[in-house]
Amino acid sequence: MTCANRSAVALAHASRLLNHGPVTLVSSAHGDASNVMAAAWAMPLDFDPPKVVVVIDATTYTRQLVEASGEFALNIPCRALASQVLRAGTVSGRDVDKFDYAGLARFAATQIGAPLIVGCVAWLECRVLPRPDNHQRHDLFIAEVVAAQADDRVFRDGHWQFDEDRLRTLHYFGDEVFAVTGEMIGGAHTRARRTP
Amino acid sequence: MTCANRSAVALAHASRLLNHGPVTLVSSAHGDASNVMAAAWAMPLDFDPPKVVVVIDATTYTRQLVEASGEFALNIPCRALASQVLRAGTVSGRDVDKFDYAGLARFAATQIGAPLIVGCVAWLECRVLPRPDNHQRHDLFIAEVVAAQADDRVFRDGHWQFDEDRLRTLHYFGDEVFAVTGEMIGGAHTRARRTP
Repeated sequence: MTCANRSAVALAHASRLLNHGPVTLVSSAHGDASNVMAAAWAMPLDFDPPKVVVVIDATTYTRQLVEASGEFALNIPCRALASQVLRAGTVSGRDVDKFDYAGLARFAATQIGAPLIVGCVAWLECRVLPRPDNHQRHDLFIAEVVAAQADDRVFRDGHWQFDEDRLRTLHYFGDEVFAVTGEMIGGAHTRARRTP
Repeated sequence: MTCANRSAVALAHASRLLNHGPVTLVSSAHGDASNVMAAAWAMPLDFDPPKVVVVIDATTYTRQLVEASGEFALNIPCRALASQVLRAGTVSGRDVDKFDYAGLARFAATQIGAPLIVGCVAWLECRVLPRPDNHQRHDLFIAEVVAAQADDRVFRDGHWQFDEDRLRTLHYFGDEVFAVTGEMIGGAHTRARRTP
């Protein structure tokens, strides 16, 4: 259902999907089990090969699946999914099927076993690097991005461009409050405005 | 000059200053030297005591000062400082006085030697934790937040509330393009809209 707008993103551009600090959905799987959780604490760590860091609390079901599989995906939701993101952040996948509970559908990733989330606007497939001290002391996971895709209505030629309000990415403040990614300034936007 | 609007932020709320993924200015000092650089790759790592992670490239002057002092501040700029943030990202502090070059003024921090940046809307004073493997392999610094302040025109009672457009925080895409933090949705904002 969402295939029509999905395009592969060059790995050298993968960090740009996450550079502006959007909230993410971390999806994971091991064996027959899969899960999804909301995570605001995720960011790029390197350009090429692209790496990311994400905080995955030791008490979560996601942590168990990520440690067992060594893989996860960072899915970047948009405004149209805001209420589903909140629902994915309020219960544990140990207790319910979070996809059903949150109203999120999934589709197959290209390089990893974790599913990707329908309706998001970017997807980064990640393999965990072995940094056990960071896992144990800080719940911090460093991973290499092995594949990336984006919705070409909002990410084209290596750049975000939000024309449709419902497809804007989200920034999470806590307490169930988001901001949408707002007006763009600088660069070609500024230069374009200066052109008569 | 900016003192009138600066208020201390409880350490237990410090992560909220950074939770939504804004771009930061990393300020640093050692001896008589000080510097500032733009950094989009910074995020919270823990709530209480609050910790942050930030990527500081090994080639930067900031890296040299941070390694020598074990301290830095994360300053969160707003829309009114966008052009100064870009200027702080285009030259090295080894070659010029970046504060003069970028047009940024500084004032004294409360707990660390690094200066804070006038005109930003939040300030986190940080002490680096000894994680040399992260420094050397990933340019990744984990630090504890030892003091935090915010502009009470936009951060009050532990929550961001952007009423003035020029005080909105920024999210960096690369290529000299930012988005401002946009419309807030969810939580009390949604509930307020539902109230007749």
